[in-house]
Amino acid sequence: MNIEQYIRDIKDFPKQGVDFKDITPLLANPEAMRICAQELLNLTEMQPIDKVVAIEARGFFFASLLAEKLNAGFVPIRKPGKLPFDTLKQPYTLEYGMDTLEIHEDAIQKGDLVLLHDDVLATGGTAQAACRLVEQLGGKVVQCNFLIELSFLKGTEKLKYYEVRSLLTY
Amino acid sequence: MNIEQYIRDIKDFPKQGVDFKDITPLLANPEAMRICAQELLNLTEMQPIDKVVAIEARGFFFASLLAEKLNAGFVPIRKPGKLPFDTLKQPYTLEYGMDTLEIHEDAIQKGDLVLLHDDVLATGGTAQAACRLVEQLGGKVVQCNFLIELSFLKGTEKLKYYEVRSLLTY
Repeated sequence: MNIEQYIRDIKDFPKQGVDFKDITPLLANPEAMRICAQELLNLTEMQPIDKVVAIEARGFFFASLLAEKLNAGFVPIRKPGKLPFDTLKQPYTLEYGMDTLEIHEDAIQKGDLVLLHDDVLATGGTAQAACRLVEQLGGKVVQCNFLIELSFLKGTEKLKYYEVRSLLTY
Repeated sequence: MNIEQYIRDIKDFPKQGVDFKDITPLLANPEAMRICAQELLNLTEMQPIDKVVAIEARGFFFASLLAEKLNAGFVPIRKPGKLPFDTLKQPYTLEYGMDTLEIHEDAIQKGDLVLLHDDVLATGGTAQAACRLVEQLGGKVVQCNFLIELSFLKGTEKLKYYEVRSLLTY
């Protein structure tokens, strides 16, 4: 099965001129989802991982599946004000303006080996901010793992100090 | 293992007077997460399920794990403007004011058997709105499945026409 057939382009979402990769048809198909999870797992080459860290909200879709198969914990990185305990904050640049990501201060132990996962690598700003949060807590980012890489946005440049692996590249 | 020990109370979150049940310590522990997923699955009694429908964002934590084990698809219900394809919208009442949930119009096929999952059942308004979305698309809600039920908020009253099962009740 070719999982690409379950990803559709939505023109002009979230705004004019942007083609959005919609993975919900893939999620809705149990066989496609199983294969996708296995292929994301294959990207890790089963390196030892203590925590799968995923970015709100689409990063959560596959995070717990990956965590289970890697026998790792799952740590959510969220938008401001969503995490209830003490958090570490990391601002990052968007196309226009700034946003912030947060992680719980006790989510990563010093020396934890981390798989960072998100659905899409675009400009890399979000993933870079997430990696910084992990590192500030003493974790080591073993791999940045994405379902989709939009290579024309050059996200790997922002992540050049990390191992970056993506299942599908457009 | 008693998974309750991995759920902590956060006082006055998200606002004064509210005790928030923080499940992130549970997510961070691979063994606790595995047991929790299995116990959520046990609640379903392995009834036939076509789609696990989960509510943004904490509902996504366990949704793909449940979907995989039930050999079902996974369908996200999201806040307004997040889903890229054509959506059906359902307004619902919050303590103060209104909010809206959305589902993709093609996410449920007529006759689909649905497990609705979320992390917490509070007043039940969100889950009720989610059930209505599923039903408007022709799906049948087989069970509303929660990790935590805050029984003093009487959410089961709003869901009285559904089978409601929760792993932990406070």
